[in-house]
Amino acid sequence: MKAVVYQGPFDVAVETVDDPTIEQPQDAVIRITTANICGSDLHPYEGRVDMDKGMVIGHENMGIVEAVGAGVDRIKVGDRVSVPFNLACGTCRNCNEGFTSACLRANPSGQPGAGYGYPMMGPFWGGQAELLRVPFADFNLLELPAGTEKESDFTMLSDIFPTGYHATELAGVHPGDTVAIFGGGPVGLMAAHSAVIRGASQVFVADMQADRLALAASIGATPVDISSVDPVGMIMDATDGFGVDAGCECVGFQAHDPAGQEHPALVMDNLIQVVRATGRIGVVGVYEPADPGAATDAAKEGRTAFDFGTLFTKGIAMGTGQCPVKQYNRHLRDLIIHDRARPSFIVSHELGLDDAVRAYDQFDKRVDGWTKVLLHPAA
Amino acid sequence: MKAVVYQGPFDVAVETVDDPTIEQPQDAVIRITTANICGSDLHPYEGRVDMDKGMVIGHENMGIVEAVGAGVDRIKVGDRVSVPFNLACGTCRNCNEGFTSACLRANPSGQPGAGYGYPMMGPFWGGQAELLRVPFADFNLLELPAGTEKESDFTMLSDIFPTGYHATELAGVHPGDTVAIFGGGPVGLMAAHSAVIRGASQVFVADMQADRLALAASIGATPVDISSVDPVGMIMDATDGFGVDAGCECVGFQAHDPAGQEHPALVMDNLIQVVRATGRIGVVGVYEPADPGAATDAAKEGRTAFDFGTLFTKGIAMGTGQCPVKQYNRHLRDLIIHDRARPSFIVSHELGLDDAVRAYDQFDKRVDGWTKVLLHPAA
Amino acid sequence: MKAVVYQGPFDVAVETVDDPTIEQPQDAVIRITTANICGSDLHPYEGRVDMDKGMVIGHENMGIVEAVGAGVDRIKVGDRVSVPFNLACGTCRNCNEGFTSACLRANPSGQPGAGYGYPMMGPFWGGQAELLRVPFADFNLLELPAGTEKESDFTMLSDIFPTGYHATELAGVHPGDTVAIFGGGPVGLMAAHSAVIRGASQVFVADMQADRLALAASIGATPVDISSVDPVGMIMDATDGFGVDAGCECVGFQAHDPAGQEHPALVMDNLIQVVRATGRIGVVGVYEPADPGAATDAAKEGRTAFDFGTLFTKGIAMGTGQCPVKQYNRHLRDLIIHDRARPSFIVSHELGLDDAVRAYDQFDKRVDGWTKVLLHPAA
Amino acid sequence: MKAVVYQGPFDVAVETVDDPTIEQPQDAVIRITTANICGSDLHPYEGRVDMDKGMVIGHENMGIVEAVGAGVDRIKVGDRVSVPFNLACGTCRNCNEGFTSACLRANPSGQPGAGYGYPMMGPFWGGQAELLRVPFADFNLLELPAGTEKESDFTMLSDIFPTGYHATELAGVHPGDTVAIFGGGPVGLMAAHSAVIRGASQVFVADMQADRLALAASIGATPVDISSVDPVGMIMDATDGFGVDAGCECVGFQAHDPAGQEHPALVMDNLIQVVRATGRIGVVGVYEPADPGAATDAAKEGRTAFDFGTLFTKGIAMGTGQCPVKQYNRHLRDLIIHDRARPSFIVSHELGLDDAVRAYDQFDKRVDGWTKVLLHPAA
Repeated sequence: MKAVVYQGPFDVAVETVDDPTIEQPQDAVIRITTANICGSDLHPYEGRVDMDKGMVIGHENMGIVEAVGAGVDRIKVGDRVSVPFNLACGTCRNCNEGFTSACLRANPSGQPGAGYGYPMMGPFWGGQAELLRVPFADFNLLELPAGTEKESDFTMLSDIFPTGYHATELAGVHPGDTVAIFGGGPVGLMAAHSAVIRGASQVFVADMQADRLALAASIGATPVDISSVDPVGMIMDATDGFGVDAGCECVGFQAHDPAGQEHPALVMDNLIQVVRATGRIGVVGVYEPADPGAATDAAKEGRTAFDFGTLFTKGIAMGTGQCPVKQYNRHLRDLIIHDRARPSFIVSHELGLDDAVRAYDQFDKRVDGWTKVLLHPAA
Repeated sequence: MKAVVYQGPFDVAVETVDDPTIEQPQDAVIRITTANICGSDLHPYEGRVDMDKGMVIGHENMGIVEAVGAGVDRIKVGDRVSVPFNLACGTCRNCNEGFTSACLRANPSGQPGAGYGYPMMGPFWGGQAELLRVPFADFNLLELPAGTEKESDFTMLSDIFPTGYHATELAGVHPGDTVAIFGGGPVGLMAAHSAVIRGASQVFVADMQADRLALAASIGATPVDISSVDPVGMIMDATDGFGVDAGCECVGFQAHDPAGQEHPALVMDNLIQVVRATGRIGVVGVYEPADPGAATDAAKEGRTAFDFGTLFTKGIAMGTGQCPVKQYNRHLRDLIIHDRARPSFIVSHELGLDDAVRAYDQFDKRVDGWTKVLLHPAA
Repeated sequence: MKAVVYQGPFDVAVETVDDPTIEQPQDAVIRITTANICGSDLHPYEGRVDMDKGMVIGHENMGIVEAVGAGVDRIKVGDRVSVPFNLACGTCRNCNEGFTSACLRANPSGQPGAGYGYPMMGPFWGGQAELLRVPFADFNLLELPAGTEKESDFTMLSDIFPTGYHATELAGVHPGDTVAIFGGGPVGLMAAHSAVIRGASQVFVADMQADRLALAASIGATPVDISSVDPVGMIMDATDGFGVDAGCECVGFQAHDPAGQEHPALVMDNLIQVVRATGRIGVVGVYEPADPGAATDAAKEGRTAFDFGTLFTKGIAMGTGQCPVKQYNRHLRDLIIHDRARPSFIVSHELGLDDAVRAYDQFDKRVDGWTKVLLHPAA
Repeated sequence: MKAVVYQGPFDVAVETVDDPTIEQPQDAVIRITTANICGSDLHPYEGRVDMDKGMVIGHENMGIVEAVGAGVDRIKVGDRVSVPFNLACGTCRNCNEGFTSACLRANPSGQPGAGYGYPMMGPFWGGQAELLRVPFADFNLLELPAGTEKESDFTMLSDIFPTGYHATELAGVHPGDTVAIFGGGPVGLMAAHSAVIRGASQVFVADMQADRLALAASIGATPVDISSVDPVGMIMDATDGFGVDAGCECVGFQAHDPAGQEHPALVMDNLIQVVRATGRIGVVGVYEPADPGAATDAAKEGRTAFDFGTLFTKGIAMGTGQCPVKQYNRHLRDLIIHDRARPSFIVSHELGLDDAVRAYDQFDKRVDGWTKVLLHPAA
């Protein structure tokens, strides 16, 4: 089959590789209809995290079930399915508690958490390819309505729609709350979409790119252009000095100022300023335990010297980490089906697999208008 | 009346000052029967936070109602009451939501949160004195059984028993959970007592003082002597490498190693190591937004460069801040009444007010055996 | 002042009565701008519950603060405010826990819960009048934006918008859930509005009146006309036989079939059928402990013989009771301010106080189009 | 193998039947070390629910894994395991949400929920036998410490300890709460044990059998002997007229007065009286949708005419239904391991399989002292 293969920093290629097969009784093989490029695919692409040469990349996958193992009795060949980016066993302690993001058995390394086509998440190939092997298929796969409708909405269910939603869940967004989201990339926009769906009364989205801010405004959020205004002052003014009930960190360790300078603590510091005393922050922007390319010595060791004293004094709570997709994807799917959610509003490009190399290049350079790329291997 | 008056760093005195009076319709005046010295009283005592000369100190207070204003109709003269250390209005938005620790109206400075005899918590005198004025008395005061029984238990309800309990609440301790508590001072021991009451299956208490570790063992916790063992290795071994479900930070910004060297990030780093992926940390040890006497430049600005990358990777959640005493004190009182809690196990000294100067000196020097001092002004 | 005074069953009159005054330090007096007639006002109107002759009726009140007592320091004269229908002290155990609906001190009878102008809720006059006395004003009153905008939205904050919202809270409605609401009167429509705001994927509203069903459809709910279809069959079909996640009982003890025959267990039985196994039901429709006019002997004693065996077998949970308005009204107010909620969509009539007699008559007869009546005493 | 086989009402026999085998890749076969007789085994024994002749009975099972299918990779041959009485697939929507008690796939009838050796729970043989087939073994089985220690404690993990705990969870028991438990049989005693573990300040257990009341007292609960005192009056007096925070229904549809007369609504009515306004009730005592042998016509149809009007007026919430064992059994196991729980205190008899016939007879007759019977097939 054809697949997007990692070759090294700033180097991916579309190559022909072996088809995946049923290896275990609980496996399925999926024919990919859509695989998205994710912002976190850029971490290995930019060489900020190590990835094995030859790995097929891609963890935002959906498609049609092509084959199932002898132990699969819920999912059927021909089912249209979404594949959560967390690959989970379904029977360990963490999976039992809903933490499929920290599955204790699926990753041969023994580290909690496994995934597809991503560093340190196990040897599992990604889905920017024609076919994908899915272990523990009955547990992992989410069934979708048959056919091809709303493909560009349903494809958001594998990662960023649940991840954006997770930010709002970690931040405890309740109906009527005010919410500040830092980062207007795909995840931040999905957090904003989720906050609106959950009944937030006002949602701020802080970013510096015009295309992202326009998308935020299009769903009823209040854009905060940090290239021209101080987001802390602006949000505090808009909330009569009280601050917002909830904050979402959708940027991660590569946070930088409008001049391009990295400041790993910048977003956390801003959030601590704008979130009310006793408020909550949800962190889904990625922070790495080790980041050799970081701007400061502390950050190289995963240390982020944000203003913890003020966080404590204000009594702010914080939730962090990778999204356990299965906790949310069924309900988000139903919102799409009933026209209450439309996450496809962020899609900028729908391309064939052969366009992947160009897409990585443009997306990585944050070329204006390249917000979110979907790859259709059959196109 | 006689009162313990702050004079400056390492200098308190027992002096005669004016009696407090009813100033507002919702005030009460309390005749203090017991006022405890708190570990956080040592922050101004050591000059780590600024306090006005002449302030009466003390925020762990209980006594008998001596007088009430015209607007007080729930609490009666003669009632035996516990005074939560948070002074709260009962009608602002934060009080409505249970966050009496962040009352928006009681502190004339406009900062959320007010209290008695403590820096930045308003002009309200403390209770290490014969009498105490309590604003918003109907809202703030917790009624106790008449008489004098269990005085040394009930006196823990004003601050450290709820504060220790709050650590376990922020850490989400559920029945059967394993819990690691760093800091075996009064708050840490109250957290351990609370964790046992909540049904934890195993509770570790890490400290370096023998008297504290012995008290931890006396209530069924597992002492971890950090002067002789690595707490991370010990706790990970005891949990088969899985880590604990919940961690409690009961030390604060003055964390130091056995050699006495301050390391502001040390306790957080240890907790991040021993708490399981997807676990929770409750932080009640105090971190200050500004700490001129801190060991590092970052810490002077309230920045604590702990291992945020690992926190994120493990998906750990964290709650922080001052305890809203009223959320817990009624239930903890009932546990004392029914002999299910006995927080007095930490009391080392019961003294008259005249002994306050010596008590501050000994407690501040952490002289072995000076775990918790109660002052009885009438003694 | 002029006021709507209860004279006996099916008999109210607009009369001149004494102006209310400040009686206690914590009182305020409000000049009423809007007072709504509530469906539960019809319980005494129809003689189904006893009410004292001479009582001023009305518990859905808002207005401008005219005077405050010496102990009121948060609310100011001139403030525009909403008055929650639960009159609560703010300092008892139940108020502390947020259950202002079961205040232990405000009702002189000693029964939990007090209110305005309603049987068994204490001697407090209602607000279908020019002026209203509000005890514990700092605690009870919710401040609104100055001016006169959105009056017909904000007036819903005193009772039915929070009550409808409470139904969805008791039923645990989460984003993506399906919800069945029985009863399309003002409360049921507010429950539907709330469910949509909370992110429900599909909301069914079952009723038999065309005007109500049309209003349900206007906010995106699916109307279920029980005069022509079996609601159980219809809802089960629409959910592929799975049932809905959450059900709301917005009818109460006077439930009747399309022919007008009362069946006290009918709505609960229908809900138990359509709610999924492990689902939840929120009951805000009123059931009385004693109902002398009930259709069956059991119902006369408050007994409702619904299908408890099936409820248990399906493992359904149920929340019940009067809404504690203060838990929700601030957030619902903010949703109105930010144009995320518009509860005024149910308003059918805005009348002067002199029209009250006619309004009671028409509303009680459920004359088509009399959905919700607002009285403006100054009009 | 030898097994206890259902022959008809009041007729069980120990017979030789075919050994169970691995039928599906995810199956395991367990060699039973302990199988308990459950109070609900008496429902078919007494003919109150229909059971197929020839069915092997028993759903409280533990043992050693004898064989596993090709799709089992977590559980190993030789593991000592507890078998939750709910047989669940682990991959359906309800299992995903933790509701293994309402598994949508395991029961061939299509009804939610499957089990072993029990009517309407599917064709799966029970474990009062030498061997037991367990489908979906990796998901269902809970691993125990190797060896034979604490066998009589761990055997409670398959049903009644979690079921008693579930009652306290449905009733929302928090530390410091007061709790009233109606029914002092094995489930009621496990609810009492759970309430104490969760930190209740006072636990009442109402029953009429002296042996049960003595066991309740032995774990620190307050026995309420309903054969000699009115439980409502006694509990209200003991709580100063306030009532208890939480109530547990551990009796079920066969509730009867001391004279032996069945009153299906009696326990619910008592609970509604003693539970505080805004309190909660957890119902784990079984109520059946159809009960041909019931005392009243309504009860025959599963209708229980309790005092719903008072429940509503007090704003009481209620949770009901079968326990989803997997939500609790791991934590309860850990409490046993660390000597924080000792559910074996209710065990009255440990017998061989051949004694099953006599045990059913004595247990059904509620012969004094036959509180809980464990069968050891290898004995």
